[in-house]
Amino acid sequence: MPLSTPPSSGTLALLIRGGADNWSTDRWKARFTTACPGRGIVLVPEDTSHGMFDAASVSYAAVWKPRPGELSAFPNLKVIFNLGAGVDAVLADGSMPDVPLVRVAVDDLTQRMTEYVVMHVLMHHRQHSYLAACQQRREWKPRHQWAASAVRVGILGLGVLGRDAADALRRLGFGVAGWSNTPKQIVDIDCYAGEAGLAPFLNRTDILVCLLPLTPDTRHILSRPLFTQLAKDGPLGGPVLINAGRGGLQNEADILSCLDDNTLAAATLDVFETEPLGIDSPLWSHPRVTISPHNAADTDADAISMYVAQQIADFERGLPLKNIVDRSRGY
Amino acid sequence: MPLSTPPSSGTLALLIRGGADNWSTDRWKARFTTACPGRGIVLVPEDTSHGMFDAASVSYAAVWKPRPGELSAFPNLKVIFNLGAGVDAVLADGSMPDVPLVRVAVDDLTQRMTEYVVMHVLMHHRQHSYLAACQQRREWKPRHQWAASAVRVGILGLGVLGRDAADALRRLGFGVAGWSNTPKQIVDIDCYAGEAGLAPFLNRTDILVCLLPLTPDTRHILSRPLFTQLAKDGPLGGPVLINAGRGGLQNEADILSCLDDNTLAAATLDVFETEPLGIDSPLWSHPRVTISPHNAADTDADAISMYVAQQIADFERGLPLKNIVDRSRGY
Repeated sequence: MPLSTPPSSGTLALLIRGGADNWSTDRWKARFTTACPGRGIVLVPEDTSHGMFDAASVSYAAVWKPRPGELSAFPNLKVIFNLGAGVDAVLADGSMPDVPLVRVAVDDLTQRMTEYVVMHVLMHHRQHSYLAACQQRREWKPRHQWAASAVRVGILGLGVLGRDAADALRRLGFGVAGWSNTPKQIVDIDCYAGEAGLAPFLNRTDILVCLLPLTPDTRHILSRPLFTQLAKDGPLGGPVLINAGRGGLQNEADILSCLDDNTLAAATLDVFETEPLGIDSPLWSHPRVTISPHNAADTDADAISMYVAQQIADFERGLPLKNIVDRSRGY
Repeated sequence: MPLSTPPSSGTLALLIRGGADNWSTDRWKARFTTACPGRGIVLVPEDTSHGMFDAASVSYAAVWKPRPGELSAFPNLKVIFNLGAGVDAVLADGSMPDVPLVRVAVDDLTQRMTEYVVMHVLMHHRQHSYLAACQQRREWKPRHQWAASAVRVGILGLGVLGRDAADALRRLGFGVAGWSNTPKQIVDIDCYAGEAGLAPFLNRTDILVCLLPLTPDTRHILSRPLFTQLAKDGPLGGPVLINAGRGGLQNEADILSCLDDNTLAAATLDVFETEPLGIDSPLWSHPRVTISPHNAADTDADAISMYVAQQIADFERGLPLKNIVDRSRGY
């Protein structure tokens, strides 16, 4: 068999869309080629659009925002790997083959999200926007600073990301609680669960950090009826929202109106209903909104390609796949 | 003996200057009265300037920036408690009685300093000023974000504060080293020591966090000859300085000129050679300088008054005092 012929099975197809500079498809192909020595790696559509390509050779797909229907071109697909934590975009495709869908859970991604959450919780807690405004006015005006123990952080979503962020915040002295759909037990974290647990969780929360997956149940959960239940007696002058989950979780019109009537004191948003955030959005210039361009937890191509390679190797040795998405739950 | 007469010995004198709003002397007196039931508490000079006060009854003094010579008014003084971590102002008083000088080391103060250090390290690491400028221009332009493990933080000073900050940064994935005058060993932290250890410590440091005490040896240590030794090959585009120790540690003219010729990429300063920082200082408006008004680790009156009360109780039961300052070292 000449070396240039791809293997007749076991090929890994890469279907990667997105657009941000750091998601260049060539870079991904190079990383996967290094991580999976000896395996055929094809970029879709770049390497597959000519007549010579055998779609039946594809056993695995690694995807980020593939186009609807694109995956059904591969009749022998065994596993789909989603190159990020959020699988809502993939699950929205009704034609997706019924094979295991695995989501990425690498320490690198978790650590980056924890950095983001810790930094933004601290910036609200330590009154950074007040102090930055003082600097602009050349004013030396220290304000009373409360202790972290006086601030109640609530994490919506206690998956891998939520648990790690909760742990890091606890280490810094914050009072931390979490809410999840199904009951969890975590040392030193007050865990609330299910519909009945949501109101008491919100009632004791000064800074709400949202790390939920986007599902039909959670769409637009971050809206006025939820915000009005947050604690009003905390030290920050009102409750604060930090959303680093998905834009579809939030109602942006409600966030703006709740900021304006002081139902919310401030908001930090990494994700938006439409991304990139439109240039006309009033969120950009709201004095109490901090915006980041969906970069809370950038994907590290090295860590993720190694993770996929390891899972494929395990799978071919008959070991179980890890972090399979439960399609009925949506995460 | 009528209840209104102060006890003939064991009185605690409070000599508290400063000026920040949260250092009101009445508030301190109320806290110490609660923390030390049954003990005479006097504010100097408010309660002692009339002829009736018996200076010989004072056994203890709790001080913050007392005026030079003020403490020598008390012939029977046994212990002086400094109501903060830095004792440089007290030691500068040549007439200070030769009794044990105890510095505050309460968990609350340590936690606050760690919050400050973690937040500002993260803000540099996560390119916060770039992202804030993007928001101002309504620009969605994510930049490549490196992992915390690619950033080498160096803590100058491995006392209680430095060790706790190092631990919290390590938890977040940063590469952390520390330098101290005398050799230390700390799990997962590369420890450098003494004059010979300073250059290799600086050579591997991308973000330098200064938590040194101010002594004749450390005055103006943060100046050009030190900055030029910091790592130039890190991911932040140049080395970053964070000083939360004492203003006397830094040469502000050098900081400005090193920012302007890119020896330093950025600086975050909580302390200044003269405080409050003068309205004319070019530091206020430098685009790569972040200023806070010496509030990195505010003193919590409850925690500190309880700490002093406990130390006095131990001392009167014949137990050793903790955290006595070594006057020959200056900390």
